[in-house]
Amino acid sequence: MARTPIAEVVNKAGQQVEVIGWVHTRRDHGKIIFIDLRDRSGILQVVFEPKFAQAHALANNLRSEFVIKITGTINKRPEKMINAKIATGTVEMTGEGLEIINEAKTPPFEIDGAQEPGEEIRMKYRYLDLRRERMKNNLLMRHRIIKMARDYYDNLGFIEVETPALTKGTPEGAREFIVPARMWPGKFYVLPQSPQQFKQLLMVGGIEKYFQIARCFRDEDTRGDRQAEFTQIDVEMSFIDEEDVMKMVEELMIKIVTELYPNKKITTQPFPRLPYDELMKKYHSDKADLRKDKTDPNELAFHWMVEPPAFKKSETEKKLVATHHPFTMPNLEDMKQYPDNPEMWRSRAYDLILNGTEIWGGSIRIHLHDIQQKVFAILGLTPEEVENRFGHMLKAFEYGAPPHGGVAAGLDRIVSILQNEPSIRDVIAFPKTGDSRDLLMDAPNIVSSKTLKEANIRLSEEAIAAAKEKGERLEGFDTAMAD
Amino acid sequence: MARTPIAEVVNKAGQQVEVIGWVHTRRDHGKIIFIDLRDRSGILQVVFEPKFAQAHALANNLRSEFVIKITGTINKRPEKMINAKIATGTVEMTGEGLEIINEAKTPPFEIDGAQEPGEEIRMKYRYLDLRRERMKNNLLMRHRIIKMARDYYDNLGFIEVETPALTKGTPEGAREFIVPARMWPGKFYVLPQSPQQFKQLLMVGGIEKYFQIARCFRDEDTRGDRQAEFTQIDVEMSFIDEEDVMKMVEELMIKIVTELYPNKKITTQPFPRLPYDELMKKYHSDKADLRKDKTDPNELAFHWMVEPPAFKKSETEKKLVATHHPFTMPNLEDMKQYPDNPEMWRSRAYDLILNGTEIWGGSIRIHLHDIQQKVFAILGLTPEEVENRFGHMLKAFEYGAPPHGGVAAGLDRIVSILQNEPSIRDVIAFPKTGDSRDLLMDAPNIVSSKTLKEANIRLSEEAIAAAKEKGERLEGFDTAMAD
Repeated sequence: MARTPIAEVVNKAGQQVEVIGWVHTRRDHGKIIFIDLRDRSGILQVVFEPKFAQAHALANNLRSEFVIKITGTINKRPEKMINAKIATGTVEMTGEGLEIINEAKTPPFEIDGAQEPGEEIRMKYRYLDLRRERMKNNLLMRHRIIKMARDYYDNLGFIEVETPALTKGTPEGAREFIVPARMWPGKFYVLPQSPQQFKQLLMVGGIEKYFQIARCFRDEDTRGDRQAEFTQIDVEMSFIDEEDVMKMVEELMIKIVTELYPNKKITTQPFPRLPYDELMKKYHSDKADLRKDKTDPNELAFHWMVEPPAFKKSETEKKLVATHHPFTMPNLEDMKQYPDNPEMWRSRAYDLILNGTEIWGGSIRIHLHDIQQKVFAILGLTPEEVENRFGHMLKAFEYGAPPHGGVAAGLDRIVSILQNEPSIRDVIAFPKTGDSRDLLMDAPNIVSSKTLKEANIRLSEEAIAAAKEKGERLEGFDTAMAD
Repeated sequence: MARTPIAEVVNKAGQQVEVIGWVHTRRDHGKIIFIDLRDRSGILQVVFEPKFAQAHALANNLRSEFVIKITGTINKRPEKMINAKIATGTVEMTGEGLEIINEAKTPPFEIDGAQEPGEEIRMKYRYLDLRRERMKNNLLMRHRIIKMARDYYDNLGFIEVETPALTKGTPEGAREFIVPARMWPGKFYVLPQSPQQFKQLLMVGGIEKYFQIARCFRDEDTRGDRQAEFTQIDVEMSFIDEEDVMKMVEELMIKIVTELYPNKKITTQPFPRLPYDELMKKYHSDKADLRKDKTDPNELAFHWMVEPPAFKKSETEKKLVATHHPFTMPNLEDMKQYPDNPEMWRSRAYDLILNGTEIWGGSIRIHLHDIQQKVFAILGLTPEEVENRFGHMLKAFEYGAPPHGGVAAGLDRIVSILQNEPSIRDVIAFPKTGDSRDLLMDAPNIVSSKTLKEANIRLSEEAIAAAKEKGERLEGFDTAMAD
């Protein structure tokens, strides 16, 4: 007999079916044994009566999270026995045959118990955590949001292009992870903070409309709800202006909310476009929370922040730094009007804010070699630094670079807001903790001295001392020292 | 006026339009100047006549790869002037207005010139290489193949789940890239060879149907047409057997060929399923090329290789190693029949071969704790090694693991075969060279001593000596030594 997903049994009253899944709960009522069976699609009540002796006897041995196969008949429940809490509540199954496919130890926490398990134990046993309805639903809705974004861009003629994960550093911005290059002793790849340079180079390459659901990496200290690796919806277009980008993002967000979250309401459409100066004056922030009722979990208040300053003074570095990033096009009129005062220049950047959180950000880029050089000079980069870091970009701009611009979304953040989840960790299948560990896999971890040697590196004295102090064994440490 | 993509001008005869793109070629015929204008969608011939004086004068300055905007009238060409080589060959444009948007230096090679440029220069100027019709088409078809695979799995109820790039090593298999963990001195993340363990843990987590277009990493020496990072279509399912997996892959491949490559013919349907022993006897290879005409670029001969041996003797290691990987389920009947002779066991693995190249490979996995332990023992792993490397997997198998299996495809390889490209480098937007360099970005590269210090590592003596010998400067090398 072929397996029937639990969600489909509702329409099979009177029929014999086979269902497979996990024992969600078991209740003994005298001689009758009730099992709630769970699969990905739902939960079904199965009744084992003594008259099906073999199945009944075996059902006695069942415990939570056993994997079992049941054959039996689907029956309509009497009106007053209907369980409105589950989708299959109008029926139940008589368990006639039972097979235990795999046993289970008692889980360290109850799957969908009344008590929320602690985060440490949820992360260590993530495979059990994912069996919970809430987590399964988060992953499913994340998939649907990504699918909708992909279909949206595909329909508009965008091409999804995969860009490298092993690349060169971009010294502006956050701290980056480095990867030793075995074949190039002393040299390293860098994991990208974003596909920024590659997507601009695709525009120079004539792709015109690019998107990617891109994995990005930032080695930052724990700052609230951040992850060392995260996912970005990444978009770039040629021959367009701010309006084109904002309209495109706006349509996608409205489509996602309307089609996937019909219970949610968008406060104002079209999304208000508020200049930075006005936002700062009125809300003392460039990310205003414009919800009418901040206690309503179904209210979504979007607004655009536009025309931010191009540069700001860095107190620590005593110089100007780029407010967005160094490839952002300044407002040309501001450049003309205040040629010697770049602090007065606005940039052609835009952020989309949802309920006070930035979810998309982007800009029109510099496509002209001379303006890019000027911006690097304002940022205090020496010609040698510019050549080392961005030489390839400047060179590309000399070969017929089209005007272009783009935008990127923090996908994890968007999913968590739409799913009403306080933490992005709850919408990522295998997240890392605040201190960047994977408690399930026990990563990061030590590596062998052979591996270190092949990577052409040694541990620093400080790392060795720190390990000694903690009494930790660093496998291969002795050999690495002796190399 | 709004921009018209070049592909759409064919239907605009008699209308005034605006087109934007790159100067593909310029030809002066006395007073009349011909421009072939190129955008992503196609090529259009534009005629500049002296009567539109300003545009004509400016057209004199145009050179290859300038970015320009032209306004003008689309005219039907007389019958004998039709150019069958281009999609817009039935029309041409009279250039009435012209704006130079960005100039271009003379490119280091002709875009779509008769001569194929050398690979070194193509890689260094990849943004120019991508302007070539061939490369643009490769990226477009790669996008379509991926899109079709995604839609296919989504329609079947699979959930795309993103798995981590920063994880722990799996010591079986290829050499892995390591990433120093700044917050955990002496410890490292490892970039995954495949999402193998995570996808199995998703099955333990009750996801039942998973897929992902996953980035994978292998730090191997140059072996023909390999890349340090590559893309895998990665699939896993619960409560299924070999037939389910093979049928699913087969349908997808037929769909891709039929809908995207109507000129190609599949030699035999359904794909023949050939046991390993039979293949070895008949073809002396487990990857047979079953094409009837090996010179026909449009012939596609698929076959499945099934029932390979579970283990083979490693000459170098003088012990048994897993033929597929250590999570592959052995044939239970073979285990019973030859309990003490694992070399006689077949495994429940399957590979899909296309024209003699393996493009998909997978297996039914071990979901039972005891069998997994037994396989680790056969592979000669000590209990301590098993605990350190795979403890989390064995633990997961104790909590109600479902029977499951899966498969993965080398996407780059599939696209290159379907596109008739000899190298996977031609179907990857920004590939690395055979010695794992990105010539465009100049990666890998040196990093600062500050970065090394934060990563808790130092360069090895050998790396420093090698750099000295080559006369290379390793930025920060002195400071790193002094730390």
